Formats: sequence, structure tokens, C-alpha cells
Amino acid sequence: MESSINCAEEQQPSSVTTNSQQEACRSQMLKCSGGFVLVHAGAGYHSESKAKEYKHVCKRACQRAVDQLRAGALAMEAVTAALVELEDSPFTNAGMGSNLNLSGEIECDASIMDGKSLHFGAVGAISGIKNPVLVANCLLIEAQKGKLSAGRIPPCFLVGRGAHDWAVSHGIPPCPSENMATKFSLSAYKRNKRKMELAEKMDAGQNQTKKRRQSSENENGSGCLDTVGAVVIDSEGNVAAAVSSGGLAMKHPGRVGQAAHYGCGCWAENSFNMNSYSTAVSTSGCGEHLIRTMLARECSAAMQSEDAHQALLEAMQNKFISSPFLASEDRVLGGVIVLRCCRNVEAQPSSNVQSAMVEFLWSHTTESMCVGYMSALDSKAKTHISRLPPGTVPGQSLAIEGGVCRLMGVLD
Amino acid sequence: MESSINCAEEQQPSSVTTNSQQEACRSQMLKCSGGFVLVHAGAGYHSESKAKEYKHVCKRACQRAVDQLRAGALAMEAVTAALVELEDSPFTNAGMGSNLNLSGEIECDASIMDGKSLHFGAVGAISGIKNPVLVANCLLIEAQKGKLSAGRIPPCFLVGRGAHDWAVSHGIPPCPSENMATKFSLSAYKRNKRKMELAEKMDAGQNQTKKRRQSSENENGSGCLDTVGAVVIDSEGNVAAAVSSGGLAMKHPGRVGQAAHYGCGCWAENSFNMNSYSTAVSTSGCGEHLIRTMLARECSAAMQSEDAHQALLEAMQNKFISSPFLASEDRVLGGVIVLRCCRNVEAQPSSNVQSAMVEFLWSHTTESMCVGYMSALDSKAKTHISRLPPGTVPGQSLAIEGGVCRLMGVLD
Repeated sequence: MESSINCAEEQQPSSVTTNSQQEACRSQMLKCSGGFVLVHAGAGYHSESKAKEYKHVCKRACQRAVDQLRAGALAMEAVTAALVELEDSPFTNAGMGSNLNLSGEIECDASIMDGKSLHFGAVGAISGIKNPVLVANCLLIEAQKGKLSAGRIPPCFLVGRGAHDWAVSHGIPPCPSENMATKFSLSAYKRNKRKMELAEKMDAGQNQTKKRRQSSENENGSGCLDTVGAVVIDSEGNVAAAVSSGGLAMKHPGRVGQAAHYGCGCWAENSFNMNSYSTAVSTSGCGEHLIRTMLARECSAAMQSEDAHQALLEAMQNKFISSPFLASEDRVLGGVIVLRCCRNVEAQPSSNVQSAMVEFLWSHTTESMCVGYMSALDSKAKTHISRLPPGTVPGQSLAIEGGVCRLMGVLD
Repeated sequence: MESSINCAEEQQPSSVTTNSQQEACRSQMLKCSGGFVLVHAGAGYHSESKAKEYKHVCKRACQRAVDQLRAGALAMEAVTAALVELEDSPFTNAGMGSNLNLSGEIECDASIMDGKSLHFGAVGAISGIKNPVLVANCLLIEAQKGKLSAGRIPPCFLVGRGAHDWAVSHGIPPCPSENMATKFSLSAYKRNKRKMELAEKMDAGQNQTKKRRQSSENENGSGCLDTVGAVVIDSEGNVAAAVSSGGLAMKHPGRVGQAAHYGCGCWAENSFNMNSYSTAVSTSGCGEHLIRTMLARECSAAMQSEDAHQALLEAMQNKFISSPFLASEDRVLGGVIVLRCCRNVEAQPSSNVQSAMVEFLWSHTTESMCVGYMSALDSKAKTHISRLPPGTVPGQSLAIEGGVCRLMGVLD
């Protein structure tokens, strides 16, 4: 992992990065134009044995996005292409191979946000669609066309059967749910089912309060959080973000997580009046924690501070791990990928070429997070599995890493 | 309407209230203790012919909440009681009598937030449940108990069939959907269906772009936005907020609006470290507009400013009507009710009795908004239908009104 600087931090009340770490993060200058993509294959637990597969998926997703960018596509199209690749992998918990719910069914959440129009599209608990992100994207595109017949306002968020039917009526092919389960997801379901039954049997003799408390100590479920997502900046300087998830394993049918929730799963805002930076964020982890802290939007807002690395560190500590909204939680599980960009004409004082600094970061409180990134000038993507430093406690500590690259001549 | 001051404002870029208006709003001092409730029967269009019914519903809802408060209930129980009453009315677009969707079915959204624990519960596109707010409340209560068996995280947001089944398994009785439709909602459905078919027939010869544009000029749909909600402060100074909606008439099945969306439909936060004021907000209007502006949370955040009236006016203008997130919308339709409270010991310098100032406000860009409010010391609720000043344009102008009362000896 040459071009990212590991600045892993254990969470401490007054923990701050040293100047040298910040400088190191800022010293990465990759020459690139035509756009940039950063993807994740989830914050959770990525076993060493499957590390290669996860990295490979991220690599392919970056390549798909960059292919689009090189062909002149906007950030929205590129981010959608990356997500489709991530969803299609049987190794990720999104689209194909998603976690099964309590009834043994697959129900997916996905959303997408366009930093240029600030439009948003989302689907929740949708079954029988191979690529939920395509439905979210289609909702966004349809909403941008304006009102429906008789002045009806087009939806930005559809769930369940209605979302499925809307998708099919808009040309997105249905996919039998049984085709979306994999050998791995089916065996995980059987294993989880047995574990649940055992836990409930063991708890049967105990009172309700004790049962709840003890169960929560048994495991943190961080192995099942590998949502996927991507953030992109295109050659015009537009940003977009997307996220897709099969949700928590053994979730109740109808449960919707952060991936479908505005401000929680993804966020993208081009720079305008009050915002000096364009920002894009995609999250992963425990949906309920990410919803109640609105982590995507909080991280995006934090990115308007001068020091991106320090701002993300503080956001993850103060708005997530130590959030008053999660005061009763013993372990706060999640991760984010973040991209921000500002025009930086000073970098090229002697020419008319404009350049923009793209800073890209990821941070997580889960044991690991798999990311990949690539600029339109790179020949291949770089991938990395970030892990919490040894001895730190998932849900109470965090890792933060990132890099910087320069986009040339992309802004007007 | 004795105890609210009409400060209706036409929306202008630099519009501010005068000092005298602010003073007038602050001069209302009703002696009350044991809590306070403010409810709404929607921002939309309330015909003069049905004004009496809407006011009557609001009155009953306030009474239900106050009955709870007098019996020592917390804000959460009181706000739920108010919502049940509002949902049970066949005149409101929530629970019984909800708008029918495109398929002629009723699908409801509801959510609730507890300012003390900051927990949140929500249901989206739920059918066959008479009181969706009870499901949202039950989700919140269950989540507060901690993790489920085998360390599973309890859901805070359920949709569709899964939400229905979860509700029934938690003791909430199902209600046949056909029993929830009313003569009025069925005839409105038939009328809307005809209108839609006519509009689509008229548009058939025109191209898609023109069709969309013309349709949007035909009507603003503000007659169908009468979501309900309530905000409460209890005798211990805890705040809670809730909202419930049948959604837009003729919405696509599976469409979820702001009433189920975190930060968009309701918000409640007790005062703590950084927040001097406890705040509670409930919204109503076009769900997509309220989602994309996160209006409930924005108004709550604004309420930490010194001048509540001015802060709400600015939030409604800058974060809603002129929001960059709704730049492409010609009419931005919505309304909020807001309650905030801070301890104010200076008001009683000569005694040990502590008092707290409760400021309550409502603001809307729709033609009208029906509200009711009551303190635990009042013998009956006050109700009011607030209307935009004559000649102003719905979706581009706003009305703002409110009052102040003092809670005695309620804070520790």
C-alpha cells in the first residue's frame, strides 16, 4: 500500500494526530486528471483468507468507475458502475450474496446522492433485484425530470414490494431471490440460525433483562457488516456517493438500515456558496448506529474544516464513538470513506492550468475495512485492508488513513 | 386565538421580523406546570367547511396528552397518546382515513423520538395497522432494552409486511385495511384517479418533457398533505416528538415519506452539554421536500439560537424555501411545530421554585396549518388554523406564529 499513510489511532478522549502525521498524509501527490474513485467493501471483519477476494472486488470496482470517467461519464454514472461491480461480487454483503434475514430471505438497501443536483434516491428492504443501486439511481434520475402526471411529486425513497414493482416497470430486470443467495450466505444463515436457537435456549431459564444483557456480551456481530460503497469525483469536479447493503445477518424482515437512509448511508455535495470543498462520503457498519448519528452527513459537514484528517478524526470520535445518540451502546461499529476536493490554483502559479486537490480518507471502528482507489490516470487500482492496531478494542477505537492526489484542469 | 401572536411573513430574501413582533411573541406568559403539548393536524389546505372538525381533533389530542401528563406520564407516553387520537380521526391523513395510494391501498409512515434517551423508532409503508405510531413507539421501547438473542442489534426502522408482522408479534392488533378507508378517502381516490387519467390522456400527444412541466403547473397537491404530529414536554422537563402520515395521495406503493425518516419527520433532544435548550419538532407537508432538507433536525438545531422566533423564521426561509437542496422546486411545501424550553430561574428570584420557559411556535409555507396546544394547568386546549396572508403564494411564502408559557417547578 504505497500511496496511503497509515495513521491508525487508538481512541482517547483527547487524542489528536501529530503534525508529522498530518504532513505525511498531505505529502502524497499523485498526478492525475479525469477523475478519481474510492470504494469500500465494508467495515467489519475481513479474514486474511479472503483478503485477496475483497481486494480483487475493490480493484474491479475502481476499474469500472475509471472506465466510465475516461469515457467522459459524470460522477453519478461512475459511482453507479462501481457499485454494480461491488454488488455483483458474491463475497460482499450487497446484491448477490447478501446476508439472509430471519426468514431466510434477501432484502437489500441502497442509496445514491448527486453532489451537483443534491438529488437523492433510495430503496429499502427490496427483494428480487440483483443491483439495488440501479433502482436508487433510476429513482434519482426520474425525480430530476420533475413532477408526475396530475402534479404528483415523484418519490425519492421506495421500499419492499412497491420498490421491486417500480424497478421492473422502469426496465430493471427482476432476479429470482434464490439466484442471489450463495453457498456462503446459505451456510452462514444455517450457522446463525443454530447459534440463535442455542442462545435462546440458554437464555430461556433466565429473566428477560439478564438475557438481553448477556446476549449482548456474546459477540459484536462485526463479521456481518460488509456493506459496500463508493465516492467519485469526475473531470468536471462533480462529486457523487453511493452505498448498498444486504443488511445485518438475521435481521427482522422489513428492517431498513443506513444504506437507504438519507444523510446516513451516503452524502455528496459539490462546493457552493458556503462550502469551500466538494465532499462525498459513504458509510458501512451497524445500520442503527449509522442512522442515529447521521454519520455520512456529519462527516461531510466536518470536511469543510481546514485539516481533513483532523476533522475526520474528531468527527469519528465525537460524533460517532462518543456520540450522545449512542450513549447506551458499548461498542459503536462503523466505517466511512471520504473524498474532498477544492480548487487549488496556487499549485500551478506559472500556467493557466487549474488544478484541484483531492484528499481521500477512510476511518473505521470495526476490526477491518477494505478499500480501493484509483485515478483516471492510473493503470490499475490500489487496494488495502485497513486494520485496527493490535490490542485495541473494536467499537471503542478507530483507525484513520488517507492520501492526497491532484486533479489537473478539471474545474471551470 | 388569544394566546398566539400572528407574525405572518411574506418570504423576502432579507425579510426579518421587527423587534416589536418579537416582543409581542415573548409577552405571552401562561401560568402552567406539569407539562405542555402542541399538536398539528397537518400543513396543507384546511377548508373552512371542515375547520371545526380539524380543530376538534386537535383539541381531543391535546386533552389525551394532558390526561397522561397529569397522571404523571413521561413526554413519550403523552406524545403517543396525542398521536393515537390524531390517527383515529377520519379527517386526518394518518391512520384511519389515510390517503389511498396508486393501487387503492393504505400505507402509513410514522416515527417517534425521545429527547431523554435520544432513541428513535419508525415504520414506513405499513398496512393493516390502525395506529402506526404505536409500532414506532414499541420499536423504540424494544431497542432501549438492548441487544436481541445472539448479539443481534434491534431494528429502529421497519417497513412494509415485515413491520406489520413485527407489530402483530409484539401485541399490536392488526386492522383490516378496508376498515381504515373512509367514505371521504375512497371518494378522493376515485376523484384523483379520474384526474390522473384525464391528465395522462391530455398529455398523451405531447412529448415527455412538456408533459412533466405542464402537469406540475396544474396543481400543487397541497390539499393532500395533512400529516399529523405532536411535541410534548413533561413535568420532568423531558421532550418528545412524533409524526404520522398516510403519505401523498396516489403515491406509488412502497413510497416512504418524511414521517418515517430520521431527522425529517420529528426530532427531540433534551438539553445537555452543548445544548442550552430542550427542543422538539414535528413536521408536515411534502415528504420529499422535508426529507431532502432534513427540516425537523434543522429546525431543532436552529432553536439553540437566542431568539426562537427569528431562528425559526430564518430556518424556514434559508433551510427550506431557499434551500439549495430544493433549488429545482418551484413550490416548497411544508410546516413545522416547534417547542423549546430552558430553565429560567431568574423568573422567580424571591423563591426556591424553579421555572422553565416553554416557547412554542409553528410555521408553514402551505396555505394553512391546523394546530392545538394545552398546558397541564389549562381546562381545555386552544386550537387555531393558521393561514398564509391573503395574496401570498403557497410554497414561496411563510406564516409564523407562536407563544410562550412558563412551567413551574418542573426541572431538577
